Amino acid sequence: MKLLRYGNAGAERPAVLDDDGVLRDASTLVPDWGPGQLGPDALDRIRHTDWASLPRVDGTPRLGCPVAQVGKLVGVGLNYEDHAIEAGLQPPDEPILFMKAVTAICGPDDAIQIPPGAHKVDWEVELGVVMGARTQRVSEDRALAQVAGYVLANDISERAWQTERGGTWDKGKSHDSFAPLGPWLVTADEITDPHGIALRLDVNGKRMQDSSTANLIAGIPKLISYISQFMTLEAGDVILTGTPAGVGLGQKPAPVFLKAGDTMRLSAQGLGEQRHVCMDVFETH
Amino acid sequence: MKLLRYGNAGAERPAVLDDDGVLRDASTLVPDWGPGQLGPDALDRIRHTDWASLPRVDGTPRLGCPVAQVGKLVGVGLNYEDHAIEAGLQPPDEPILFMKAVTAICGPDDAIQIPPGAHKVDWEVELGVVMGARTQRVSEDRALAQVAGYVLANDISERAWQTERGGTWDKGKSHDSFAPLGPWLVTADEITDPHGIALRLDVNGKRMQDSSTANLIAGIPKLISYISQFMTLEAGDVILTGTPAGVGLGQKPAPVFLKAGDTMRLSAQGLGEQRHVCMDVFETH
Repeated sequence: MKLLRYGNAGAERPAVLDDDGVLRDASTLVPDWGPGQLGPDALDRIRHTDWASLPRVDGTPRLGCPVAQVGKLVGVGLNYEDHAIEAGLQPPDEPILFMKAVTAICGPDDAIQIPPGAHKVDWEVELGVVMGARTQRVSEDRALAQVAGYVLANDISERAWQTERGGTWDKGKSHDSFAPLGPWLVTADEITDPHGIALRLDVNGKRMQDSSTANLIAGIPKLISYISQFMTLEAGDVILTGTPAGVGLGQKPAPVFLKAGDTMRLSAQGLGEQRHVCMDVFETH
Repeated sequence: MKLLRYGNAGAERPAVLDDDGVLRDASTLVPDWGPGQLGPDALDRIRHTDWASLPRVDGTPRLGCPVAQVGKLVGVGLNYEDHAIEAGLQPPDEPILFMKAVTAICGPDDAIQIPPGAHKVDWEVELGVVMGARTQRVSEDRALAQVAGYVLANDISERAWQTERGGTWDKGKSHDSFAPLGPWLVTADEITDPHGIALRLDVNGKRMQDSSTANLIAGIPKLISYISQFMTLEAGDVILTGTPAGVGLGQKPAPVFLKAGDTMRLSAQGLGEQRHVCMDVFETH
């Protein structure tokens, strides 16, 4: 199933995309696509509902993040060898974790904000894993059973804030609009192999990232098992599994960062596409 | 006002502690002490309600975290000079930030879990700041107006996970029970000076930490303003402002860490007291 949310930011309604590509409002079935709707039984109920009776949504509304009430957004660093090399770092001995503020989450086509003082805003196409159940110290062989589905993600990062301002990476990972997710949550039953998903990202029409989750250093069962030793994952939590080579930081002869007016287009095979325009934000308080 | 939540974990009810120290159920007034109840108008309404009509809560129920639905738990590192020195580090040029998983939050007297494989679990008494409004790029002089109130916090940390396992500190800060908050949220109007709060922590009856928020390197307006440049704070978000010297890592001649059966007692002047017993957790999946 392809689950999604449409409408104005903060007022999204749940919807499904049917086999004919028709967007249908699902708010008679569920209050939202939140933690309580992502477990296997809840998803089975949706799967066995006759969608033909659900109202069609006309036009092309804004899409929001397909998951409501995300509790945690856990990032994985340097999880593709070619990206570690372009960043001038060794692939890590064990997964690098960081956290993104949940307030960074936005929709798949929302504008990416270039905040005041930010000069190194960068892109990272990634596979996102949406948890479907409470998960604590799970073994690798039972990890995938805890997954509700997968989403396309762009782990936007301000590199100076991430590494030149002291402390952890979180500072550069958490601004509003730095975590576009979607367009759809594709349920796990429809993804035959989450380690064979092509990932691509273009900036201003030029292909910058072109890889596959086949190249993940730590695969998804390993990541879920590993993270769940350190913290309890809950339904609706999202893991961003890392990005392959081709980010702005890695460009030669010099890094390239995002500026107002730049456009991005990214995709993950079977998980849809995101399109973003970058814009400066000016605010005083 | 002293706002609190009582009852079993996950099923807490909102309550107030009146001037006579009587615990009164507030669930006829508010659904919970969540983000929607922490703004100045919502708090004023509670302040001007006649509490005498609220039912007394008998006995001594378990207390939960006084804030419901905490969206983000932002930690500040090395924000007391004596603690930076005991950790063998320089006080930072600007605040160090990290994030704790919101699933780490527990009540003020809950057991502290020593997870499998954890050998360096440590304590950190801190002042917690609870936000009352959405806050983005706020100036220092307007920052305190965004605060709903203050809580006592214990920023439990597994030091090996924090610094010896690669990546950010978040890995060592996020296990279940690593963020006891409470007993009460004391509203900001009752805290004359948040930079004059005595902080104390005893382990097994021995005083280990004894300081005051007067010794904060970055004070609360600075922290709120600073954090809000990097991410948007929302009502119900909690900032942990850092810990003074006396943690287990800093003990001479050798570090001392928590083990099953150890007890902790900690307090912040005017914000109440926490008491914890440490226990091993054994789980298989």
